[in-house]
Parts: sequence; structure tokens; C-alpha cells
Amino acid sequence: VSGRPVYVSGVGMTPFGRHRESSPEQLGQTAVLAALADAGVAPGAVGEVFCGTGYGLPGTGQRVLRDLGLTGPPVTNVENACSSGSSAFRLAVRAVASGQVDVALALGVEHLSGLGGGTLPAAKGDVEGSVGLNGPALYAMRARRYLEATGADSKHLAMVAVKARRHGALNPYAHFRKPVSLDEVLGARMISDPLTLLMCCPTSDGAAAAVVTAAPVPGDATPIRVAASVLCSGVEEDGGRDMSWSETTARAAAQAYAAAGLGPADVDFAEVHDAFTINELMYYEALGFCERGGALGLLEHDETSLGGRIPVNPSGGLLCRGHPVGATGVAQICEAVWQLRGLAGDRQVQGARVALTHTTGGGVPNLDHLACAIHILRKEDRS
Amino acid sequence: VSGRPVYVSGVGMTPFGRHRESSPEQLGQTAVLAALADAGVAPGAVGEVFCGTGYGLPGTGQRVLRDLGLTGPPVTNVENACSSGSSAFRLAVRAVASGQVDVALALGVEHLSGLGGGTLPAAKGDVEGSVGLNGPALYAMRARRYLEATGADSKHLAMVAVKARRHGALNPYAHFRKPVSLDEVLGARMISDPLTLLMCCPTSDGAAAAVVTAAPVPGDATPIRVAASVLCSGVEEDGGRDMSWSETTARAAAQAYAAAGLGPADVDFAEVHDAFTINELMYYEALGFCERGGALGLLEHDETSLGGRIPVNPSGGLLCRGHPVGATGVAQICEAVWQLRGLAGDRQVQGARVALTHTTGGGVPNLDHLACAIHILRKEDRS
Repeated sequence: VSGRPVYVSGVGMTPFGRHRESSPEQLGQTAVLAALADAGVAPGAVGEVFCGTGYGLPGTGQRVLRDLGLTGPPVTNVENACSSGSSAFRLAVRAVASGQVDVALALGVEHLSGLGGGTLPAAKGDVEGSVGLNGPALYAMRARRYLEATGADSKHLAMVAVKARRHGALNPYAHFRKPVSLDEVLGARMISDPLTLLMCCPTSDGAAAAVVTAAPVPGDATPIRVAASVLCSGVEEDGGRDMSWSETTARAAAQAYAAAGLGPADVDFAEVHDAFTINELMYYEALGFCERGGALGLLEHDETSLGGRIPVNPSGGLLCRGHPVGATGVAQICEAVWQLRGLAGDRQVQGARVALTHTTGGGVPNLDHLACAIHILRKEDRS
Repeated sequence: VSGRPVYVSGVGMTPFGRHRESSPEQLGQTAVLAALADAGVAPGAVGEVFCGTGYGLPGTGQRVLRDLGLTGPPVTNVENACSSGSSAFRLAVRAVASGQVDVALALGVEHLSGLGGGTLPAAKGDVEGSVGLNGPALYAMRARRYLEATGADSKHLAMVAVKARRHGALNPYAHFRKPVSLDEVLGARMISDPLTLLMCCPTSDGAAAAVVTAAPVPGDATPIRVAASVLCSGVEEDGGRDMSWSETTARAAAQAYAAAGLGPADVDFAEVHDAFTINELMYYEALGFCERGGALGLLEHDETSLGGRIPVNPSGGLLCRGHPVGATGVAQICEAVWQLRGLAGDRQVQGARVALTHTTGGGVPNLDHLACAIHILRKEDRS
């Protein structure tokens, strides 16, 4: 983050899940009001707004804000596939860091129920997608390659889902609140071999918001600073042929660690883009939480579970908290803030001081990622 | 613009019009390559990209760039209705001004032919829009109110179209290249009384791009600096009842003039959001080119024609150059740069040193504007 220090001073979100009766505007308003109240910031103090949505209507951010009377400041809607929310958050951070405004609001909204359910639709003109290379199919291919390369088997893919559900059962904002067993995950309906239904994130509705400020707000005993804010698009120098490695995530992580002056060993927990269980294993490696090929060891030794060395997705992640596309990246920020404040209840990561959040968007029809966003948040020492 | 000075060092666009045979990606690529070549900047030097599109597919910017090999840097897609392109340009300006990158690319892409033609579709759930209060209907209401308040008549509405076509006939990038007469405009098919077909902008396809840099590029004899970059959303304190006044434009203009340290009298020409002819009259007043109620006088005395005191839309504007939604704001920047460089050929505004560009997006179902963007560009004195 070049420029002034930037703090996340308030967060709020709706529970994720099916909200067929609510409009996207209502979901967004709930999140915005909660974040403003959490920060103790009046709507009139907001200098700029960024709204991430993957499938929302034109003017989604303005539609949310209008009924709140939060009108006047610049509002920009951002679309970056599954990184729409984190891309919006990054621009809010920059708006403050650059000195343009003292208070910015990031918002993510998605109402996938409005799309009718099922996998996310292939874009018009997307030849590969329209003949079946949709999200689950693509990640099934990556899973096959990863299993082949590492000697892992379906049980490992299932263990990620079991962990996500175990964590998410403790999270009142999660789409699913019930743990599942290994056998349930392995025995669930096959979606795209080897990925069963319970190895795929659900299509959820929801919204999340974060208030970003140039200084801690009055009374904030645990100011949380944005230590890194990185966005990358994928390169394809090898044609994306090594499907078991995420070059984009690795590159974004390297930039984020450099910006924060930290390394993977300094991260106390992470919220990671586990759209499918295979992703999480790949990202353990690309984020540097273990050596390449070491993900199975981390998983088998429960090191990424609550209580482990580096808990991943204490919220339940996309698999269990849910994945309302444009809201996910901002929801990760909410979880990071609650954890760093020590307010995460039964799912608290004890003594957490440094959090990493990660989303990747795109991937169909190409292995490449349209947009990988990584943020590092750090609790400041108060003296 | 807070932060470092920012220059527009290269621009490029496709001709606007019907490009049914071209993909949005191809249109975008043509514009990007032209802008990079114009700036003499290699694709690898681009540090960040913003892509404006109103109706494009998810990942539009990344789709455009992938086949150019311009992969790796952060790419963010921006949707702000008719201000999508100018909102993208503003974020490119901020990326450079803030010191984040030295070179940023702004891109606007739209392929309205893909939507099937006719007026822009009402958003799902937009009750007023779905029963007929679409763009032409809304601006017809504003026109009625304006005619009532000022004593203007349909002839004035037609004169704006005649001027636009006269200018645009000189612009090789324009959708329409043929002048029209007052009688042709008045006698055209009625779309929404009092607006005839020729008083409404066409639905066009096209793309435009601009390269933004922290310093003039080598050999740039006429560096063009961004003197103001403003985005506002509308407020509705009076419920939008005075339909003949654009509060949002007036507020954005006041901010832009203050940022540039200039006033309306310093503006040598302007590119203004004339989606319908009535708009241009309202914006003369809101931009301060005349007193409130003075627009008819400006028009009648040809002061906003080429050769007049303050030429408006020398490009032909939305009415004649065309209006591919997400591309329009960036195309205005292209026109401003060409004019300030003295390279606008038959439509050159002689001696132009200061240009203002203006887009407004939204307005349906509400009179309020979702996003009004104003930029002021200024040719620097070289000593």
C-alpha cells in the first residue's frame, strides 16, 4: 500500500445463504449499515464508495446507497469475477492511502438466487464453457492432475470439506451450520469426477461491507492496518499447462509479503479462495504455507484447522460460509477483522495478529486467473 | 487530482458504429494497440489497467488484454452506466497520481449490437423502466419541462442535432458522417414526444483507450496534463423535482473547476454527454458555459459550434460520433487529446489549450444520476 496508512475501522455482513425474499439492495443495505455502525462513522462522512458485484444490475452500488440517503460521493461498481469484492476493497484502500478521501466504503453484493441456481453461467461466446468446461469441470481437471502428481486421493479432497464444515458450523454467518463426515463428502453426488457436491462451494446470496479510514476511529482499542493490498492478473507463459500450480496466486503472494515486510510464517490465519476443495490444497503451496507438494502433510496434521499452526478458513470459507461472488472478498475482510479483534467467538484463532485474505476470479475457459487479490491485515500495537 | 502530476500520453479508438462482425475483444484490442503506439509505450510497461463497460461480459478487460499478451498487471473492470469509461479513466489517473504505478491504461469497450438493438434494456426489477420510463421517455419529460420553463421549442432541440451532425461529418471516427437539416430532424420518426429519432443518440459499438503516465513521454512536444478528475453520484434532496436542472453535473463541475484552478470561461471546448439533444442544453447551464436559462442564446448565436466561443462536441458527441456506453467517456478523452495537440483535422478547435469532458450515467427510473464524471485536460506550456 503506497501512501498513507490505512485502517479497517468497521465491518458488517449479512449471513450468507439463500435470501430469495430479499433484494440485492436490501442485502447491501444491511451490510453497509452494520459496517458504518461498527466503525461509528456517519454515512455523511463517507468520501467514496466501491461496490463489487459479479452478476449484479448496472448501478448496483448506487441502488444500495440511494435508499440509505448515502448519495453524493463518487460510487464505482467493480466487476472482477470472484475477486469483485476484494478488488472493490483494494480501490477503497487506495482512495484513502492516496489522500483522496479520509473515509471510504467497500461493499460486495450478490444475489445468485436471481440467476436461477446451478453452476455459474458460461459467458456468451465462451466456447469451452458452453460445451461443459465450467467451474467444477475445470477444477476437476486440476484436481486430477494434482492427485496424479502428489499421490493424494479423494480422501484428501474430502478432508478439506470436512474441515470447512467443522469451522463454519461455529460461524453464525455461514451458509451451512452442520458438520459433515468424510463418508458424507465422499458419498455425495458426483459433480465432476473427482469432485462431489460437498467438495464444491454453494451458490449463495449475501453482502458484506468494510469501512476504510486514514486513522483509527476514536475508541478503537485494536486498530487494524492494511499491510498489503495486491491485485494481479494471470500470465500464461507456459500456456497454463501445469494445472496443479497457481502461478498467479504465488506471484500475488510474493508481492503482498514484500509490501507488508512479512513472510508466510508471520501469518496467523488465512481466508483462502476454496471454491472447490482442490483449490485450498493448491493455495497452501502457492501462498507459501508449506513447500510445494507439502499441502497433504499440512492437512493430515491438522495444521490448517482451528488450533493448528496456520488455520485456514476459520470462517468456513467459500465451501461452508458460502460464495455470493461479489461479496466473498469483503466477507473475508470481515472475518479477518473479527478474528484480529478477538471477537470471533467459538471459531476464534487465539492470539491472531496477522491475517491474509485471498480470492481468485476467472479460470474459465482458461486456466489463467482474471484477477487474484491478496490482502494482509495486521493488528497494531497500541502503546 | 491529488498526488503527482498525470499526463495523457497516448490515445486510440475504433470508429464508432455498427461492428456486428467484430467481437468486443477485437474492438478493445484495436483501441489499446492504437493508444500504446500513440504513446510509444510498450505493453510490458503498463502497470495497471481499468476497463469500463456497461453491458460487457465478466472479465471484459482481461479478455481484451489476453490475446495481446498484456497479462500480469492488475486489471479491474468498472461499471458505472454511461460513465463506465470515464470512471475507468479516473481510476487510471488515480493509480498514477498516487504513485502506485508510472503507466496506467484506461479502456472502454461496448458492443451494443450484441444486445439486439433498440433502447437500452430496463434492468430486471426496474418497475418504472419496465412499464416504459426508459431513457428516451425520461429525457422527453425533462425536455417538456425545459421547453415550458424557458420558452424554447422543438426547433431548439433540433438545432443541437444539426450541430452535432455538422461536426461529426468531419470526424472519421463518427457513427454518422452525413449532415442533417433542421427539417429532417423535426420530421424524423417521433420516439418520445418531443424527441424525434434524430434527437436521440444511436446505439453503437466501439472501443477507446488512453495511456496515462507520471511524466510526459519522450518526444512529446505537447504534454497534456489532467487538471481535474471528478466523479459524483446524485443527491435527491428535492426528490429530483426540478427536471430541467442537473444538480449532479453542476456539483461535479464546481469540484472540477476548483481542482483545476480554472473557471468555465477558461474552457476552450467541451465534450458533453448529449445522449438526447435536451441534455446538451441543460449541461451548457450546469457546466457554467452560460447563466441558467441562457442555453438557447448560446445555441442561437452558434457559440457552441466550431468557430464559436465555446465549441461543444466538436467530435459530433454521443448524437453523431455515437454512444457505445462504456467506450464513450474514453472516446471523449481521445477527442480532447487530439484537439489539444492540434491534430483534429477539419474539426479542429483553433488554439485549444483547455478541454472539459463530461459524462453522466443512470437516470432511470430516477432522475438522479448514478455517476457524473468530469475531466479537465490542459496543454502544458513547454519552455
